[in-house]
Amino acid sequence: MTQTMSGIAASNGIAIAKAFRLEDPKLNVDKRTILDAHGEVVRLTAALDLSIQELEVIQKKTAAAISEKEAAIFGAHLLVLSDPELVGPVTEKIKTENVNAEFALQEATDMFIAMFEAMDNDYMKERAADIRDVRKRVLAHLLGVTIQSPSMISDEVIIIAEDLTPSDTVQLDAKFVKGFITDIGGRTSHSAILARTLEIPAVVGAKTAMADIQNGTIIIVDGLDGKILIAPEDSVIEEYKNKQADFDKQKAQWAVLKNKATITADGQAIELGANIGTPKDIAGVLDNGGEAIGLYRTEFLYMGRDQFPTEDEQVEAYSSVLKGMKGKPTVVRTLDIGGDKELSYLELPKELNPFLGLRAIRLCLEMPDMFRTQLRALLRASVHGNLKIMFPMIATLDEFRQAKALLLEEKAKLQAEGVAVNESIEVGIMVEIPSTAVMADTFAKEVDFFSIGTNDLIQYTMAADRMNESVSYLYQPFNPAILRLVKMVIDASHREGKWTGMCGEMAGDEIAIPILLGLGLDEFSMSASSILKARSQISKLSKAEMAQHTDHILALSNSQEVEDYVTKLANN
Amino acid sequence: MTQTMSGIAASNGIAIAKAFRLEDPKLNVDKRTILDAHGEVVRLTAALDLSIQELEVIQKKTAAAISEKEAAIFGAHLLVLSDPELVGPVTEKIKTENVNAEFALQEATDMFIAMFEAMDNDYMKERAADIRDVRKRVLAHLLGVTIQSPSMISDEVIIIAEDLTPSDTVQLDAKFVKGFITDIGGRTSHSAILARTLEIPAVVGAKTAMADIQNGTIIIVDGLDGKILIAPEDSVIEEYKNKQADFDKQKAQWAVLKNKATITADGQAIELGANIGTPKDIAGVLDNGGEAIGLYRTEFLYMGRDQFPTEDEQVEAYSSVLKGMKGKPTVVRTLDIGGDKELSYLELPKELNPFLGLRAIRLCLEMPDMFRTQLRALLRASVHGNLKIMFPMIATLDEFRQAKALLLEEKAKLQAEGVAVNESIEVGIMVEIPSTAVMADTFAKEVDFFSIGTNDLIQYTMAADRMNESVSYLYQPFNPAILRLVKMVIDASHREGKWTGMCGEMAGDEIAIPILLGLGLDEFSMSASSILKARSQISKLSKAEMAQHTDHILALSNSQEVEDYVTKLANN
Repeated sequence: MTQTMSGIAASNGIAIAKAFRLEDPKLNVDKRTILDAHGEVVRLTAALDLSIQELEVIQKKTAAAISEKEAAIFGAHLLVLSDPELVGPVTEKIKTENVNAEFALQEATDMFIAMFEAMDNDYMKERAADIRDVRKRVLAHLLGVTIQSPSMISDEVIIIAEDLTPSDTVQLDAKFVKGFITDIGGRTSHSAILARTLEIPAVVGAKTAMADIQNGTIIIVDGLDGKILIAPEDSVIEEYKNKQADFDKQKAQWAVLKNKATITADGQAIELGANIGTPKDIAGVLDNGGEAIGLYRTEFLYMGRDQFPTEDEQVEAYSSVLKGMKGKPTVVRTLDIGGDKELSYLELPKELNPFLGLRAIRLCLEMPDMFRTQLRALLRASVHGNLKIMFPMIATLDEFRQAKALLLEEKAKLQAEGVAVNESIEVGIMVEIPSTAVMADTFAKEVDFFSIGTNDLIQYTMAADRMNESVSYLYQPFNPAILRLVKMVIDASHREGKWTGMCGEMAGDEIAIPILLGLGLDEFSMSASSILKARSQISKLSKAEMAQHTDHILALSNSQEVEDYVTKLANN
Repeated sequence: MTQTMSGIAASNGIAIAKAFRLEDPKLNVDKRTILDAHGEVVRLTAALDLSIQELEVIQKKTAAAISEKEAAIFGAHLLVLSDPELVGPVTEKIKTENVNAEFALQEATDMFIAMFEAMDNDYMKERAADIRDVRKRVLAHLLGVTIQSPSMISDEVIIIAEDLTPSDTVQLDAKFVKGFITDIGGRTSHSAILARTLEIPAVVGAKTAMADIQNGTIIIVDGLDGKILIAPEDSVIEEYKNKQADFDKQKAQWAVLKNKATITADGQAIELGANIGTPKDIAGVLDNGGEAIGLYRTEFLYMGRDQFPTEDEQVEAYSSVLKGMKGKPTVVRTLDIGGDKELSYLELPKELNPFLGLRAIRLCLEMPDMFRTQLRALLRASVHGNLKIMFPMIATLDEFRQAKALLLEEKAKLQAEGVAVNESIEVGIMVEIPSTAVMADTFAKEVDFFSIGTNDLIQYTMAADRMNESVSYLYQPFNPAILRLVKMVIDASHREGKWTGMCGEMAGDEIAIPILLGLGLDEFSMSASSILKARSQISKLSKAEMAQHTDHILALSNSQEVEDYVTKLANN
């Protein structure tokens, strides 16, 4: 009997091959008292140097085999290794506590890992994974242990691992490694991102794959649906081979669309943009045929540091994104922190309900100096491309007016200083608070565009914390209440000759797309890897036909009825 | 120069008289080791007995001078004195620790007081005040100290005190005591409630009155605006005498309305109900001419205990309210706990954003046994009056259907058991979540009525925690977004021949009333003491005329514009 497991679909496609268990070497670290502290520091330094040399080789290999962009990950690892804030405490520990280098390294890095993992933020959690990866390499050198290397694989396999480090992943040769499965990790982990770049099917977060799958067992990885099939029967293998063939055919169709515009079956042009977090993401956007940046989350620029980025640092980041997009529309969202996003160097009062508290534009208006710095940086960068500025968490027209007034003040100051500023910057808002959706008609007279942030809009409209498992049943993107609010926003913008985009999860959803098309959404912004699929879907849909279903859909009484109706439409 | 202080307006009216400082006796409690523990317990028992006798006298005096209802407070005090859970630990302490009775009493009651005060709940905090009051009396007897008594006052005065205990307040003779001021307490403290019953002007929570006001100084208490004027000049006294005269005239006009219906100037009938927390509140509702209970908050029945109330206990409470209301409409809201309302005996998981978490109907549907008990109790009580059942925090139609299904199941079971149930119970919902307001048309086909809970509706619509000072500027009842949602709900109900009430703070607000009348609100539910004033205001307003302003008001762009517009209307 075929045994089935589920995980998170991390990279599309299907693979069928033997399992290859990639196990971490045993790196037993004992605590030893040492007499020659100086000699121990020399041992540490040697291990660090060897690790740096190895990483430089891997970095070059990756740049050649994959891309400069992917290789940048190892640049980050190299920075970790030469970071005095990390290395300093290790040598300090050796000297003051007279302990061996392995133990000192383990203890000192444990502290950093715990600190990063405690942060409720995926980006920072990934930093913890980086440190683990680097530590393993250095420990192996200290202990004289060889790290098992995926590059030694010379047979078609599916790799099973607790987790793949970035340096493991990059050694995966798609000629032999047909897919991989990890027990931990999520869709945004390094390994998941690399798997998508390498186009190797992958399922992550499978939890018990290492426990349940033996070396050499035939398995199927279904990266489309996040399934793993262990020792499948012939009929199942046949079924999945067909699924794979269908997927390959589909992918070929999508690839053709990379440099095409997004046009509906009835000839209406739609804009497909991408959500990004850093300038590094631009390459992926262009590779996937993105026509715009629908959301650049500037908060990442403020994270993982010990002070605010300077105006010049910000100008550099924003300019780099605008230049990279070569005149394509680029919506930059001003700082959205507070709520679940914290900055280590900015102490904010603890709140009983942080999602209903002082965050995003509310905080920026409370800290105008910080906000003005960002606005100046955006204005200075604006000459390098097609910048659109977007304010997050706007609840009242007064807030928008205040924020825009600050922007105009900074613009006037810069111009008085003789600094060039793009004169045609659109200024818009995120619609993610119910009051703003309900009042969209009054906002539409003053803003240049709307972008609907569905994650928060759903959370507030349903009064259900989207991170709280107990009320997750209320996180309903297809609740007709949400769709009605979306319609209010789109209609209001069109009446004033403005446009509406969407940059929440929903914009890339297969069931949402036909509905949103029917509602008249102008711009869909999603993760870059979803763009071609969305373009393909949209090209087969008639906007006019979908619009005819709108009234019926909005009159349905619950989320399930909406999903059922759209699914039925798609199958007709 | 007249010195001015501010506090919380606790009881209407204006008083001008000399200050009389009511100071607590010095009750110094030392710790002494005693040899005769038995003798010490006898001393304690004697002091308890004397206190009981005193309280029985005060209770009788109050019942005669004021009302049975007010006297009930002393019943609660008597219960404290004979509660083995309170007295037990004191005698235990005397015996095991060989300490004097005063010290044992102080220590044991400190624990209870700390426990009650730690609860984030006004009702429980008042229980701490009860224990303090009772303890003072017993300690005075143990120490042989006389407690200063307001009943000895024989001159016209305004009492200044840190706090007034219920037993102080009840001795206030309105012939001499013209008003009072306390440094601590809120609008719902015993003393504030008694002041309103006695119709003595009062300001509570003045913070520094005891520090700043000397015995014999002439002061003015303005219980209308929560102001205190110390050593006022003649012109100020004259001004306040006029204000008092105006208030007396107005009160006389309101009193006439007590047994009248609520009819607008253009002859439309409106229902004015009251929000209550316990059966004891019924007398106040009827005294103030309440035509209905618009909201009975049943959670108080679940608080201040160590286990769930039994079905029979609940039947008794609900029956008592229904009988008290003599057939007038009585909307009972099912249990609304979670969020900021906790039960000591129900452990709930800590949530990051409790206001967006598992509360009210969400929790009841998770704990169907607890919920069914309440529903059965309501059904059994239903034969005693005009019961309407209301579910709180409904976000989706599915939740309403589930809750109603449980109600119908319990009804069928009871009827199968031969228990009589009222066949015409209306079943409605609170509208306090944006999704429900937006979907009101679909709800209106299935519910019997809506009641808009503005406190939460504003909080979620604006995405601003109403308890969080940092975002309090966003708690905007007059934001047109809120008014538009209110309109959606009212219109939807009328299209299906249903009615809409409002039971949030807003329903009793002077600026909100004209707007809500224009929007077509059918029932206004507020604190009982606001009813006559609201009836008076409504009787002067034309519903048809106000309706003509609705479109204009809803098209305004912010809260301030709405307030200004309505204020201007009122002054025309």
